[in-house]
Amino acid sequence: MTPAIDPNRLWQRLMQLGEIGATPDGGVDRQALTDGEAEAWRQVIAWGTQAGLEAAADAAASLFLTLPGRDRTLPPVMAGSHLDTQPGGGRFDGAFGVLAALEAVTALSLAGHRPQRDIVVVAWMNEEGSRFAPGMMGSEVFAGVRSLAEVRAATDSRGISAGTEIDRLLAAFPDLPRRPAGFPLAAYLEAHIEQNVLLEQAGQTIGIVTGIQGKKTFGITVQGGKGHAGTLPMADRRDALAAFARIAHALHETVGAADADVRFTIGRVEVEPNAPSVVPDRVTFRIDLRHPDNAVLESLGRRTADIAAALAGPCRVAVSPLVSAPSNGFDAGLQARIAASAAARGLPAMPLLSFAGHDARHMAGLAPSAMIFIPCRGGISHAAAEWAEPAHVAAGAQVLCDVLAAIA
Amino acid sequence: MTPAIDPNRLWQRLMQLGEIGATPDGGVDRQALTDGEAEAWRQVIAWGTQAGLEAAADAAASLFLTLPGRDRTLPPVMAGSHLDTQPGGGRFDGAFGVLAALEAVTALSLAGHRPQRDIVVVAWMNEEGSRFAPGMMGSEVFAGVRSLAEVRAATDSRGISAGTEIDRLLAAFPDLPRRPAGFPLAAYLEAHIEQNVLLEQAGQTIGIVTGIQGKKTFGITVQGGKGHAGTLPMADRRDALAAFARIAHALHETVGAADADVRFTIGRVEVEPNAPSVVPDRVTFRIDLRHPDNAVLESLGRRTADIAAALAGPCRVAVSPLVSAPSNGFDAGLQARIAASAAARGLPAMPLLSFAGHDARHMAGLAPSAMIFIPCRGGISHAAAEWAEPAHVAAGAQVLCDVLAAIA
Repeated sequence: MTPAIDPNRLWQRLMQLGEIGATPDGGVDRQALTDGEAEAWRQVIAWGTQAGLEAAADAAASLFLTLPGRDRTLPPVMAGSHLDTQPGGGRFDGAFGVLAALEAVTALSLAGHRPQRDIVVVAWMNEEGSRFAPGMMGSEVFAGVRSLAEVRAATDSRGISAGTEIDRLLAAFPDLPRRPAGFPLAAYLEAHIEQNVLLEQAGQTIGIVTGIQGKKTFGITVQGGKGHAGTLPMADRRDALAAFARIAHALHETVGAADADVRFTIGRVEVEPNAPSVVPDRVTFRIDLRHPDNAVLESLGRRTADIAAALAGPCRVAVSPLVSAPSNGFDAGLQARIAASAAARGLPAMPLLSFAGHDARHMAGLAPSAMIFIPCRGGISHAAAEWAEPAHVAAGAQVLCDVLAAIA
Repeated sequence: MTPAIDPNRLWQRLMQLGEIGATPDGGVDRQALTDGEAEAWRQVIAWGTQAGLEAAADAAASLFLTLPGRDRTLPPVMAGSHLDTQPGGGRFDGAFGVLAALEAVTALSLAGHRPQRDIVVVAWMNEEGSRFAPGMMGSEVFAGVRSLAEVRAATDSRGISAGTEIDRLLAAFPDLPRRPAGFPLAAYLEAHIEQNVLLEQAGQTIGIVTGIQGKKTFGITVQGGKGHAGTLPMADRRDALAAFARIAHALHETVGAADADVRFTIGRVEVEPNAPSVVPDRVTFRIDLRHPDNAVLESLGRRTADIAAALAGPCRVAVSPLVSAPSNGFDAGLQARIAASAAARGLPAMPLLSFAGHDARHMAGLAPSAMIFIPCRGGISHAAAEWAEPAHVAAGAQVLCDVLAAIA
């Protein structure tokens, strides 16, 4: 049987990593390419080096920690997730996947297990996309979905480019070898908290993820005309906020209520000039639309753009499609291996769909890929209250370790 | 007949004052209690002193320039406006009223006209309220509407208090005598650009302002629950943005469409956490509601609060009334004097309502008060394109001079 992971070591490391960027309410604010992420890199590299792993990074600032295999010419197996969080994030989203993979290879390494292939622990750059949008930059560059140049050109709210911050992060680790992005892989595995209540409600410990629901995002700008709130007659207004409210309300009522599987969110809104006594002349907002059925997703995407255009009234509206990621299914063989490990360990497991996007979406185009979910309390994520039980954390890492040992 | 004002001197001074805080687009950024306002004070005090006026300030940093009357025990007549601008303001809003009053008393003084009563030119502190909200601080302290302590406690976006900045402004003028706020007045007059198109459309030069429409403002907070945009089922959401859109749309459709006289604006909106893939848990917004009929204004105010509460859905809503200023009517006798002066000078004049608020609103509670409007191009104000014709500027100042001479 595969060596046992060390549940205490893993849990201690998760809690220790959560101190980097810790917020007073118990959450974590460790956004992509910040000083906090650099500090997390330093910690994770130190742990990896202790276990005999080789650290490296690619030009998109994704971090790799490799347990060398017996035949280094074979494509490696990769496992991991991301170290960045939302501004009001928690201790588990991303960090669990990276540390579970690190724990798995650490356990293998300490047990003297020498795999046939390299096993690479990865921490992808900017999965969350809160500071630099859209997210999943590291995995998209690795998978060739987006160019490094495009990723580098993205700017944060202060106008700082991702390129500047990638250079700054890499410069802080001058001795770290560079690896080309997109090297061949034999398989990819990602462990993650579920961010939903299906496992919790079913009393299951291991989620065998069958696929990720499709996602579309849009950036919409409503352009009207400025005016004095006390003088400009209502009939003469081109009030961008009034048009936004009309559009947003209609979208929630139609697209957001299309069926039980749809997920529709307007999460980000910017009003200009945003002064109490000035009629707003511009509202910019972001739509996040998801559905497991690709045909329905496409249809709802068209309806979103149509409604925005139809209800703009005296304002002009511009709809920019940003992300368009169809639903994808994970590798059946890897799903079977996850199920077999859970059964052998006596862990209750069930197949389920991922409603959130993950870097594994992009890896699935490169190599057989799969994900292992563990429950998180109340399904809460992207919040200080995000929580996973120590026993579930250990279980997920053990199953990951079993599958990695079997396929590497 | 009253002495003639000097149109060229007045215009030159308006343009010269507009250089203080001038922006590249031809506008003015001279917000309250900034270095720019101090420089404007220095200039206006120099002009006043040349004309034999006595400069002084009160503890709220409103500036007074007094032409001494023959009987200094009588309550003075006061005229003026403000020297501060919006961040993207123009050359006329406020500045015209102060310089028209200064021109009027300068013309009287140079012509050897010695009025019975003192005539005080005033520049009220922080009318605009863009840096320290809400505005009209100087006139509200003078009229006893707000306490000096409350005004001093207001902070700007960098956390600097109005009190600190009042002290800094007054310290820059160590020799300026201090006058108590709220001294008795015989009358108050304010000249101002109309900030609307009624005079322009009717081809009239002088607006005899009958009153200022009532205004209510509210701060509303919608509190929901945060969640992951990809996972949280729609039925389980407490989406603060969805509730805001429902409420804002309904308010625009009902309160904003109540009749032709209503002015309804949601000008400021803050969404939290304002991240593209997070269901927002909090939206804070500001409502600016105005109506010339106090009964209608009260009724629409109640309706606003009722609609917000009724449509919050699974979110909680808190409505805080901020400003509640009823409509006020100006003094009939002063309106008649303005009409008489316009008629005598051959200036086409009409009565009209002010849709914007002015310091005169508060003076009307202390003494007979009135306002003189002149047209501004396209009704545009709070913008670089704000513009008034030199002939209209001169006409407004001449009428103000006539009325001041008659009543002082």
